[in-house]
Amino acid sequence: MDRKRRYEELLNNMNQYNSGTEGITRVAFTNEEQACSHAFMRLCKNEGLEIRMDYCGNIIAKREGKNKEFPPVVIGSHLDTVYQGGKYDGAVGVTAGLEVIKRLNEQRIETEHPIEIISFACEESSRFGVSTVGSKAMAGTLQKEKYQHLKDKDGITFEKALSLCALRFDQLGLASRAQERFKAFFELHIEQGPILMNNDKKIGIVTGIAAPVRLIIEIKGAASHSGTTPMNMRKDALLGASELALALEEAAKREQHNGTVATIGVLSIPMGAMNVVPGMVEMKVDIRSTSVTSRNKVLDALYKRMERIKEVRGLEIRAQEISKEDPVQLSEELSLKVERICLEKELPYQWMQSGAGHDAMNMTSLGPVGLIFIPSFNGISHHPDEHTDLEDILKGIDVLEAAVLEQAIGV
Amino acid sequence: MDRKRRYEELLNNMNQYNSGTEGITRVAFTNEEQACSHAFMRLCKNEGLEIRMDYCGNIIAKREGKNKEFPPVVIGSHLDTVYQGGKYDGAVGVTAGLEVIKRLNEQRIETEHPIEIISFACEESSRFGVSTVGSKAMAGTLQKEKYQHLKDKDGITFEKALSLCALRFDQLGLASRAQERFKAFFELHIEQGPILMNNDKKIGIVTGIAAPVRLIIEIKGAASHSGTTPMNMRKDALLGASELALALEEAAKREQHNGTVATIGVLSIPMGAMNVVPGMVEMKVDIRSTSVTSRNKVLDALYKRMERIKEVRGLEIRAQEISKEDPVQLSEELSLKVERICLEKELPYQWMQSGAGHDAMNMTSLGPVGLIFIPSFNGISHHPDEHTDLEDILKGIDVLEAAVLEQAIGV
Repeated sequence: MDRKRRYEELLNNMNQYNSGTEGITRVAFTNEEQACSHAFMRLCKNEGLEIRMDYCGNIIAKREGKNKEFPPVVIGSHLDTVYQGGKYDGAVGVTAGLEVIKRLNEQRIETEHPIEIISFACEESSRFGVSTVGSKAMAGTLQKEKYQHLKDKDGITFEKALSLCALRFDQLGLASRAQERFKAFFELHIEQGPILMNNDKKIGIVTGIAAPVRLIIEIKGAASHSGTTPMNMRKDALLGASELALALEEAAKREQHNGTVATIGVLSIPMGAMNVVPGMVEMKVDIRSTSVTSRNKVLDALYKRMERIKEVRGLEIRAQEISKEDPVQLSEELSLKVERICLEKELPYQWMQSGAGHDAMNMTSLGPVGLIFIPSFNGISHHPDEHTDLEDILKGIDVLEAAVLEQAIGV
Repeated sequence: MDRKRRYEELLNNMNQYNSGTEGITRVAFTNEEQACSHAFMRLCKNEGLEIRMDYCGNIIAKREGKNKEFPPVVIGSHLDTVYQGGKYDGAVGVTAGLEVIKRLNEQRIETEHPIEIISFACEESSRFGVSTVGSKAMAGTLQKEKYQHLKDKDGITFEKALSLCALRFDQLGLASRAQERFKAFFELHIEQGPILMNNDKKIGIVTGIAAPVRLIIEIKGAASHSGTTPMNMRKDALLGASELALALEEAAKREQHNGTVATIGVLSIPMGAMNVVPGMVEMKVDIRSTSVTSRNKVLDALYKRMERIKEVRGLEIRAQEISKEDPVQLSEELSLKVERICLEKELPYQWMQSGAGHDAMNMTSLGPVGLIFIPSFNGISHHPDEHTDLEDILKGIDVLEAAVLEQAIGV
């Protein structure tokens, strides 16, 4: 069987584990996700890997090196999905790891360093509102007290969900490998954006991962009758929000060369009615960049405009920053090696940033990290229409294989 | 007892009928509203009026004139309220009518023309989404087939609600007085807007009643990841909506001298999430003016901007006009008489338009109509905080009394 068919079967195999009718629903710590993880462990075992599941539900499959004490070269991503997601987000990275192992096995290549595949638990925030849980636990940075009482949409707590997987909340700390050092960590992931496709590139070499600043903004005006309140006597909260939305767009566009983006994804008018001037608007803002300076420029522009809108429109505006993490820079050394591999293989590539978070970002505390993107058709992701051509995935695996091998062979 | 105390008691008496804890809830065709109407009939009977309830639940109380065949001078408004409304909207106009009758009775004034007080049924649209039902029925313009299956929030149909008041849906047509002619119709109503208060006027003489153009606008872009979609590759439906909102405000402000207003009272992002670029926005637009030309200018500006937004932002926009009625002009003759009365009484007044609909507008087919406004504190209405000073109501009643008497005495 050729490699293409073989890989396709593997990916399809994983996507059998699905509780939805539209797209793929394989949410963290559910039966589908656990069955999928279990199947993946078997497939790894078939390739002679030593497998274990850690105290947070991460799966670790190890191909021994000539030197058992050498730090491992690690390939990791996740098998969980959002509700009604696609076939590629996460699953590509995990299955790519196994395909790399299969290639080494069929060529009977021995490496100095051990190689590990990790399928991280609960990467997606869909179920409990928190993301990259498994990789945080492995990095030893999980603040578990924040998680215990989180509930999913059915009212099941994080703790209960763990216990249904025979995992114990009070043992989460044992998943930490903070005392270890990896030789290198690689993640192959779909871009989830349109840049590679629009630029006709096959590989994205990621230099950094943005961390969002997130704000909840509440605009208060005065609700009044839409027929009887003259235009110049209104305090229309929606018009204030509209001005703010356009000002945010303008500010982010000025910082586009830094890859900065800003979005108002949620906006609502509580008690809104067709014949009432909006007296209140609530909105949620997400600003991301791998450059803190650039991100802060956009944030400053937002605050400045807020002040002006307050004054000119007589509105009250309250903004609350609900998260403000620092962006993560990835290994320049590994990235340059990935670039050389692309050049050798004559694969069109580009340097880019990741606006989305990935397990890779938590691994930076354990060793140098490389993140490799492959194209997403029309940039669609977290959606049944998510698609990446099989050929493109295989090109990504070729690069991953070369990069891993280079690290694992060397001392 | 002085007139002020007497009137205050009457208004408070009516507002005892209330099923809510916040403000007044006396919704059309409910027990509270029927009990209130019943009490009002008794009070009218106590003043020697001949009372009847028509086939739509309108209450008609008649003080006979010297000439029984002369067309009546009519004072009308409504006793129903919105959910959690105020004490004044509607109730002021009905109780003012009875106070006028009391004053004529205590002065033993006989008039040539009969005088009627009408409390119209179901003026507010809160329960079934349709307004001024009783006055439409009386004008003979009710298209009852549209109403039969309307349901309130508890699933009770319009027909069932009528039957619980011992009214029959198939007899609604019998409420029509389209063959009659009124000598004059007057309605005294709170402004429900801030103009009189802001301009320090006590009386508003209404020249016309605006009819809204109402639209549902759907903007379709492309939902995408807020972190991975560069600013210049987005089709953000909310940004299109924001532009449209500000353009609508600008257009309405240009037409402010015509009293034109425009509002987006409802806007939602279905499936909106903090980390998703909005792919869809739904909004509801309300544009009002007593000038069709001015209203159409604003509407044209809205459509023009829609085309530009479609082009520049690559969005799909669909707009559906769900209502487009013609504004109503009131009687210039009656209005000029009201003005003369204000001048004689040295009451500060102003000419104005009504952005809100009133029963008065349906009465224009039965005779000349005058609509008199009194101040609303801060323009608040349809809200527990709705307030009009007792002194201001009494000034309004003085004007109403003089206007009614002038019409009723003359031949």
